[in-house]
Amino acid sequence: MSPRTHQTAALLIIGNEILSGRTRDANGWRAATRLFERGCRLGEIAVVPDEAERIIAALERLRTGFDAVITSGGIGPTHDDITMECVARAFGVPLLEHAETLAVMREHYGEEGLNPGRRRMARLPRGARPIICERSIAPGAHIGNVYVLAGVPEIFASQLEAILPKFGGEGFLRREIEVSLPESAFARPLGRLQSRFPDVEIGSYPSRCGDHPCGKICLSSRDAARLDAAEAEVRAMLTSLESTQAND
Amino acid sequence: MSPRTHQTAALLIIGNEILSGRTRDANGWRAATRLFERGCRLGEIAVVPDEAERIIAALERLRTGFDAVITSGGIGPTHDDITMECVARAFGVPLLEHAETLAVMREHYGEEGLNPGRRRMARLPRGARPIICERSIAPGAHIGNVYVLAGVPEIFASQLEAILPKFGGEGFLRREIEVSLPESAFARPLGRLQSRFPDVEIGSYPSRCGDHPCGKICLSSRDAARLDAAEAEVRAMLTSLESTQAND
Repeated sequence: MSPRTHQTAALLIIGNEILSGRTRDANGWRAATRLFERGCRLGEIAVVPDEAERIIAALERLRTGFDAVITSGGIGPTHDDITMECVARAFGVPLLEHAETLAVMREHYGEEGLNPGRRRMARLPRGARPIICERSIAPGAHIGNVYVLAGVPEIFASQLEAILPKFGGEGFLRREIEVSLPESAFARPLGRLQSRFPDVEIGSYPSRCGDHPCGKICLSSRDAARLDAAEAEVRAMLTSLESTQAND
Repeated sequence: MSPRTHQTAALLIIGNEILSGRTRDANGWRAATRLFERGCRLGEIAVVPDEAERIIAALERLRTGFDAVITSGGIGPTHDDITMECVARAFGVPLLEHAETLAVMREHYGEEGLNPGRRRMARLPRGARPIICERSIAPGAHIGNVYVLAGVPEIFASQLEAILPKFGGEGFLRREIEVSLPESAFARPLGRLQSRFPDVEIGSYPSRCGDHPCGKICLSSRDAARLDAAEAEVRAMLTSLESTQAND
């Protein structure tokens, strides 16, 4: 992995529609999946409302706590789209019409089509670079360690692909092992196993299959050999426990 | 609504599985929907990893910033289940086996079935009350303004119903209006309308239907009469704009 890429990131989702339950988040899941595949550790997802003070406070907290912050939402033309203003305020720079973006919009919409709402979407914080993608004329913005993306899932996904080369490098690998024992039956040996594999992240995710306990043990790491070794030990541990149970 | 209920809340989701993209969050969406229906404002959702310092810092930040915090995840028997410990540390109290819970577990599992993993789930921060639901023997916990719930969606949902009477009261109402204009066409008049209806939250959520712009304008408020008035004005504004466009 390149030392110049971001190794940790946070995601800031801006939008009342998520907090009111109107919309089920899709962008957080998308970003989590893609950053994992790039080997960049997503350290936090925060969802905040369309309120300037809350957005700015979250931006400040996250951009000092992680290598980079990706934001989602609030960059359209309506009154509740205030993310670009907030990013500009967080960086202490003005929000200005971006000449290159304005030219692209003028080309696309024609002079009459370039209404005030669209002109609003041509504004970037001073010093920001536009994030161009094929799904939107209006760009996202990259300034410092903050990447400002759209909330519409198709556009978010397309802009995310445009910036991903700046994140991580060698991806994380994942293995999943199906389990038909209750978690309490393997909790202790699994904990001991985790302490012998500090470089493999081991999680247990229970569910129920009818009346029976079931679930998955999930292992992830960048190192395939260590993952193989940990997986073999987990499987051996489970086999041993199952035979003990069968003999009870 | 009762003055004794929580009028604002934050949700703290604890789990590497969300941040790695392994699992798509369901509990945030569930809590957002149910709190909206109860008229309790969900002010933030934060997703953090299974790391004690990160969990405690988020708990401290959210429980001072909102009337109440609901947590999700990390209360099972495995090594990565550390939420109860973190809540105890945040409140400066020990984590102790809860006699009543232990008695319920002993009754359910029998003495031999009460293995160390299960005993671990009988521990609550001192002073906490168990949150009982029909989907789980192991309880959640309520201490101060923090409600500790399970991560498994069925159990989370069931525990959430058990605590909801303490949140909000008179629900928010929502109206949605379908739009076939690009947002930029109505952004300014919608903004003016929002400023005349400060008690109605107005959001615009664009998408694309084939090659055509489409989307929804979403209004919410506790006041049905104000919602009616705002809805009528939005519809009139859209009709006027559509006829202008048709005449262009």
